[in-house]
Amino acid sequence: MPFVNIQITREGATAEQKAELIAGVTELLARVLNKNPATTFVIIDEVDTDNWGIGGQPVTALRLAAKAGR
Amino acid sequence: MPFVNIQITREGATAEQKAELIAGVTELLARVLNKNPATTFVIIDEVDTDNWGIGGQPVTALRLAAKAGR
Amino acid sequence: MPFVNIQITREGATAEQKAELIAGVTELLARVLNKNPATTFVIIDEVDTDNWGIGGQPVTALRLAAKAGR
Amino acid sequence: MPFVNIQITREGATAEQKAELIAGVTELLARVLNKNPATTFVIIDEVDTDNWGIGGQPVTALRLAAKAGR
Amino acid sequence: MPFVNIQITREGATAEQKAELIAGVTELLARVLNKNPATTFVIIDEVDTDNWGIGGQPVTALRLAAKAGR
Amino acid sequence: MPFVNIQITREGATAEQKAELIAGVTELLARVLNKNPATTFVIIDEVDTDNWGIGGQPVTALRLAAKAGR
Repeated sequence: MPFVNIQITREGATAEQKAELIAGVTELLARVLNKNPATTFVIIDEVDTDNWGIGGQPVTALRLAAKAGR
Repeated sequence: MPFVNIQITREGATAEQKAELIAGVTELLARVLNKNPATTFVIIDEVDTDNWGIGGQPVTALRLAAKAGR
Repeated sequence: MPFVNIQITREGATAEQKAELIAGVTELLARVLNKNPATTFVIIDEVDTDNWGIGGQPVTALRLAAKAGR
Repeated sequence: MPFVNIQITREGATAEQKAELIAGVTELLARVLNKNPATTFVIIDEVDTDNWGIGGQPVTALRLAAKAGR
Repeated sequence: MPFVNIQITREGATAEQKAELIAGVTELLARVLNKNPATTFVIIDEVDTDNWGIGGQPVTALRLAAKAGR
Repeated sequence: MPFVNIQITREGATAEQKAELIAGVTELLARVLNKNPATTFVIIDEVDTDNWGIGGQPVTALRLAAKAGR
């Protein structure tokens, strides 16, 4: 009965991609640890880029810097 | 000083129902473990059905299948 | 299919008390939101008092201060 | 490679304030534990006041009571 | 830069199996969402069976009942 | 009433260092968002290096590779 929480930045993941993550993680847990898919939960959190920091900076700032540098 | 996080699918829980969950969990922790309500936190996360998977499928798909099968 | 995470300090909660929390939260979600107990998960985390802070201090320090003040 | 999750009520924190939290936490972990900022993640969750309880009541109710008592 | 938290009951997962989960989830996020493995974090929590409830009961009780019923 | 969860690898952080993190985060939230320290919670989770992955590998493997490469 595993519980999996996937946190990603909110940058346009589609319902199809999220369904693929759910199916893939559930299959992985069944294959590696013989966990029952019927009681495997997967929750995906999409986080605004203003609210996610890495390297001491919000992702919003990193994306702008990356664009400017192209 | 307990911290409780309740995750449910976003399917129309009302403010009154959420207040009832908060009161109920806080009372439970006071009764069972003698925890002080003044420092008991409860956070409710409502998760889109596209973002919650069980049995390898998003809840959105399960709800549609359940409707179709009625 | 709710998921509930209860975080408490590790200060001697017994298996019976933890079972009572699990039963109580599950019953609350069934009563208030009509959630199915069969797919309600409850995870209890017990946290060392060195690792839990409130008011800017570890709980370890607060417990010592409370004892000294008795 | 620390991971930090900050949960606050959704009551108007600005992007600038959130950037300041991200920078401050990252700097703190580098200073105290010599953690590398490049692999320090900070995620801020802003929670609706209906969904956050303390003292057995939603923050929404506490804010209204505080206003009425002014 | 995804963050993934996998919670399982503490029932003997080996270091090799945990490494396989880490590799598998990281590969899945790279394949489905083009996420960079270098900044993909995976944290596995192993939870005592006394501290995990499903169906209103601790997993410890469910395992004992399953054994008794064999 | 913020709630902060800091996850780090279990690699010898002392009680003093953890107290410094608790004090620092609490002070940061008071300074930036005017949050009341009395209701600011900080929980530190120390995670075994076998259970933390980055770049698709457990930190245990990364630490061994780093030692070998010295």
